[in-house]
Amino acid sequence: MSTAAIIIVGDEILSGRTQDTNSHYIARHLSDVGIILNQVRVVGDKHSSIFDSVSNLRKCSDYLFITGGIGPTHDDITTQAVADSFRVSLKLNQEAYDLIKDFSLKKGLGFNSARIKMAYLPDGCELIYNSVSGSPGFIIDNVYVMAGVPSIMYAMFQTILPTLNHGKKFLSKHIDLIVGESYIAEDFEKLQNKYPKVMMGSYPFKNDLRHGTSLVLRSSDDVMLDLAYKELLFAFNAYVDL
Amino acid sequence: MSTAAIIIVGDEILSGRTQDTNSHYIARHLSDVGIILNQVRVVGDKHSSIFDSVSNLRKCSDYLFITGGIGPTHDDITTQAVADSFRVSLKLNQEAYDLIKDFSLKKGLGFNSARIKMAYLPDGCELIYNSVSGSPGFIIDNVYVMAGVPSIMYAMFQTILPTLNHGKKFLSKHIDLIVGESYIAEDFEKLQNKYPKVMMGSYPFKNDLRHGTSLVLRSSDDVMLDLAYKELLFAFNAYVDL
Repeated sequence: MSTAAIIIVGDEILSGRTQDTNSHYIARHLSDVGIILNQVRVVGDKHSSIFDSVSNLRKCSDYLFITGGIGPTHDDITTQAVADSFRVSLKLNQEAYDLIKDFSLKKGLGFNSARIKMAYLPDGCELIYNSVSGSPGFIIDNVYVMAGVPSIMYAMFQTILPTLNHGKKFLSKHIDLIVGESYIAEDFEKLQNKYPKVMMGSYPFKNDLRHGTSLVLRSSDDVMLDLAYKELLFAFNAYVDL
Repeated sequence: MSTAAIIIVGDEILSGRTQDTNSHYIARHLSDVGIILNQVRVVGDKHSSIFDSVSNLRKCSDYLFITGGIGPTHDDITTQAVADSFRVSLKLNQEAYDLIKDFSLKKGLGFNSARIKMAYLPDGCELIYNSVSGSPGFIIDNVYVMAGVPSIMYAMFQTILPTLNHGKKFLSKHIDLIVGESYIAEDFEKLQNKYPKVMMGSYPFKNDLRHGTSLVLRSSDDVMLDLAYKELLFAFNAYVDL
């Protein structure tokens, strides 16, 4: 099974101005291809915060995905912090330069020093192409650095997703019960202990009509999942929300 | 200035099943009262992940807020992990027990061993009351542990917010420009260097009508903020999105 971590870079998230949606997007897609997400961190536009998180998380997971802080302005310092974490220098990447220049000219945008800054990338990195804004992200070792603007990040992520080592997809089943968690907690734990290969989670829900509990079973082993699910249905039959 | 960190606990966030909104809620409210948020972490329902994050982050910030994993089921292990981080044991908290029992009986809910589990809290902690579900959160040293269900978390957070050391509120001003970031990057950086007490961020936007750049200025010093903002307006007057 491959594992992953995510770093979201941006003062605008920490200040509450913007709600991060990138991590949820990446989480859903990783789940779909059987890659286990271990952790998400949101850090500010601060060299030491990005550096520390990158240096730590790239060693704990097979993949580290980073979004944000690779634009042309002074507060975009992710590229430098990632390079520093690998102790490599930033170098003008000719392919990135050409891509940014071509895109700028084609779209009638200015091609200036700020745009050229985005072509300075860690020595030896690979590019992540993006059709939305032209400026590429990059890959260095197991670290994938993408833009923070969601539409650009999606485009970048979709180009790298097929290249990742997909695991056996996690399958999930769930039932909604019309009782609170504490009613089923004891029996639910017994079921978890009986099926250690199936991850079982319990989530209270509340809507206009009623409140209750969603029980979610997840596993990459479809036989075990089916067995556990059948037993779950049998055990809590009386409480199922129809 | 006080600082804070947040830990969101829950497999359901990392699997992409649920989008976390708790961190955004807390971030907005901290911003309103001048407390600086340094980091957000999302970790799974795993003892070592919660333990490591708590042990690390409670030392780096004045406040650590945690949501999720304090319910009655087997996957709720936050309370134990937090207690372990402080090397204290869980003990039946009589006040919590009474609150949970009273609430359960008043609402006609069962009062069973799963509910009683929620009254076992770190020795010496204070309670965070909540009127929504009855079961309290708790405070130990600088760590505030709340429920993961948003409506319950809101109720808990609102009871602790007035007790925190509020800083001088961050004021912010922003303008939207009809040009991309690279057009203004150089002059914007000069302005940032001139006003180091004002944090300046640049955020591309795109909507149905146009795309452009939002420039955001934040500071707790209103005089400096006004000066910087006037200079910003003067410098980029031609590009302002009216």
